Amino acid sequence: MDKNPLSANFRLGFLGAGQLARMSALQAFRFGIQIGVFSDRNEKEPVEFMTPYSQTGSFDSADDLTLFADTCDVLTLENEFIDSEVLAQAQENSGTPIFPSPQSFGLIENKLIEKQTFENAGLSVTPYQLIERDKDLNSFGEKHGWPYLLKSSKGGYDGFGNETVHDLDEARDAFKKLGGKDGHDIIAEAFVDFTHELAVQVARNETGHVVYPCCETVQEDHICVAVKSPAPVVKSIQKKAQEMAVQATKAIDGKGIFAYEFFLTTDGELLLNESAPRPHNSGHYTIEGCVTSQFENHVRAVMGLPLGSTKLRSPAVAMVNLLGNKRRDAQVDHSFDALQEADGHLHFYGKLDSKPGRKMAHYTLLGNDIKKTYATARKLTKDITI
Amino acid sequence: MDKNPLSANFRLGFLGAGQLARMSALQAFRFGIQIGVFSDRNEKEPVEFMTPYSQTGSFDSADDLTLFADTCDVLTLENEFIDSEVLAQAQENSGTPIFPSPQSFGLIENKLIEKQTFENAGLSVTPYQLIERDKDLNSFGEKHGWPYLLKSSKGGYDGFGNETVHDLDEARDAFKKLGGKDGHDIIAEAFVDFTHELAVQVARNETGHVVYPCCETVQEDHICVAVKSPAPVVKSIQKKAQEMAVQATKAIDGKGIFAYEFFLTTDGELLLNESAPRPHNSGHYTIEGCVTSQFENHVRAVMGLPLGSTKLRSPAVAMVNLLGNKRRDAQVDHSFDALQEADGHLHFYGKLDSKPGRKMAHYTLLGNDIKKTYATARKLTKDITI
Repeated sequence: MDKNPLSANFRLGFLGAGQLARMSALQAFRFGIQIGVFSDRNEKEPVEFMTPYSQTGSFDSADDLTLFADTCDVLTLENEFIDSEVLAQAQENSGTPIFPSPQSFGLIENKLIEKQTFENAGLSVTPYQLIERDKDLNSFGEKHGWPYLLKSSKGGYDGFGNETVHDLDEARDAFKKLGGKDGHDIIAEAFVDFTHELAVQVARNETGHVVYPCCETVQEDHICVAVKSPAPVVKSIQKKAQEMAVQATKAIDGKGIFAYEFFLTTDGELLLNESAPRPHNSGHYTIEGCVTSQFENHVRAVMGLPLGSTKLRSPAVAMVNLLGNKRRDAQVDHSFDALQEADGHLHFYGKLDSKPGRKMAHYTLLGNDIKKTYATARKLTKDITI
Repeated sequence: MDKNPLSANFRLGFLGAGQLARMSALQAFRFGIQIGVFSDRNEKEPVEFMTPYSQTGSFDSADDLTLFADTCDVLTLENEFIDSEVLAQAQENSGTPIFPSPQSFGLIENKLIEKQTFENAGLSVTPYQLIERDKDLNSFGEKHGWPYLLKSSKGGYDGFGNETVHDLDEARDAFKKLGGKDGHDIIAEAFVDFTHELAVQVARNETGHVVYPCCETVQEDHICVAVKSPAPVVKSIQKKAQEMAVQATKAIDGKGIFAYEFFLTTDGELLLNESAPRPHNSGHYTIEGCVTSQFENHVRAVMGLPLGSTKLRSPAVAMVNLLGNKRRDAQVDHSFDALQEADGHLHFYGKLDSKPGRKMAHYTLLGNDIKKTYATARKLTKDITI
């Protein structure tokens, strides 16, 4: 970009309009720039309340994306729902750069290619196999043990697109359900015996890279419900996860913010499980918990600015996701205890409709001891309903 | 308000669209609510890039304000340019509450009434006198010494509406210039020999009140150019200023965020100089410098939420205002040193046009020693041009 990105008429466009774009947009505003938003939904999404410049279209249409790109100086992603080839087409048509680049994204958008990319970079990944024929379903179970996971290679999130299979019958049903019979690539992934699920975020651009502390994600039903930072594991493991995350980002020549999820196995091995070319739920705690949040470094990275310090602001930080309780107009009830707690921070995403399990808000608490801080954060949020 | 303010369809309206509303709006978004903005200017203002809901009109028109109020659940101020009676009219017409209330604002909008309000509350203020006739101009100078200040009782800011007068001729010219001959109330204010100019912010609503640390403001040509927090004065003075600020807020039954500026005289006396019923430049440092910023507590206060901790995040915080250097499309140059500094935070307000002296951005640095931190912040920002 020849234009100085720190200009009042510079516009950063978000492909996707959910809470990740919303929290990044807040940081974009702090740098004085404008934002545009491209949504694929008809109902009003969180970021559309934050700008006069929003556009609706199809994530599958390079033409729709090009029209939007023409109104922006740079584009960035908040999800993995757009095909990298469509992104490349929109970038070429409009001349508007997209970060992470379609090339980088192309190396991780498909779970099969993602695993190959990271294996080629020398990183250990969860054992996996492309299911090419019916007998692979059985042989994978025999080799790695039942149950295991079947995953569609594209488009999964928060447990969608994943099926846990306990025997061959379930495997066949899941293969069909996930679209294997329709030609979609399906991969099998071994269940790993782990003691912790860990995550690390990395921001990188032409000025260098920064890496966030290694945190632990607490998962229930494939959804991240809470995060503890730093992760309650030995320092050498934290460091190893950070090194792997940086190595993975370099392997895809990533520009932007990236998140990596790991299993720490019962054998003490670190396996890279998943990656995301965008801000990630595991990094929400960085808003108050670190000197520079993942969202600010996301914006800095795609604007080509120097990256900010990722240092923790306190010895312990806990983040609790607040999920919708029932279908209703979204509002937060019973939050005063949480709001009154010193160094407790509530974030509500402004989604109009609540429904059970939907990510609606989160709460971050800074403290001195991760066990206590986490327990307090859970306690302060247990009565909140949305 | 019967409506739960933590609702995705709750809308907070800002009367005024500059950087103070912009930084408050960022906190409103963090609570998931929507914002509306009322601007009295035709050119696009900073907050208008942050919402689809903006309206242009006259600050003097209760009808214009009522139309806007009808689209919002609560309104708040970012300046003192709207008459409290007009505010009261718009509030009555629309049924939309305004905080700070027109009644509170009415007690401080006029500099004469403001001083009387605070004197009646037992607070020491800068010596002043309403200038009712020509001979008052001379007698005030004889009594309190030349030079002194003449101020129009309404609408002044950043040195506008103020004149320093060294003799009777200058006093007569200034009286005329400020509108004294046209019936505007003009007050004379003594020059005070002071060692420090101090400031304190207070947030207050029906749930209680919180008070920020006492900081020092560094002024050049009547414009605040920098802030140091905590102020480099003894703790008893800091505490006294905080107590006076709370007392002043109670005296006007303030709901919202309020800022108070003090002179610490060479005799060690604290004089309340000015008040503002809104976020204030002296409190920008609280965004990163305190656990809860003045902007977040502004939003919490008007939403009726519990107020957040005002504790400093580090032993020393310095804030430097970045003023426009010349007329041009606004952009920030030579900022990389400032961006690279650990715990240095750049905020650019997104005003489209820069001009000499216009407040365009600010920079906050957290550190351990206020003298060093302030010196470093000045050094890191000295080459920045906007």
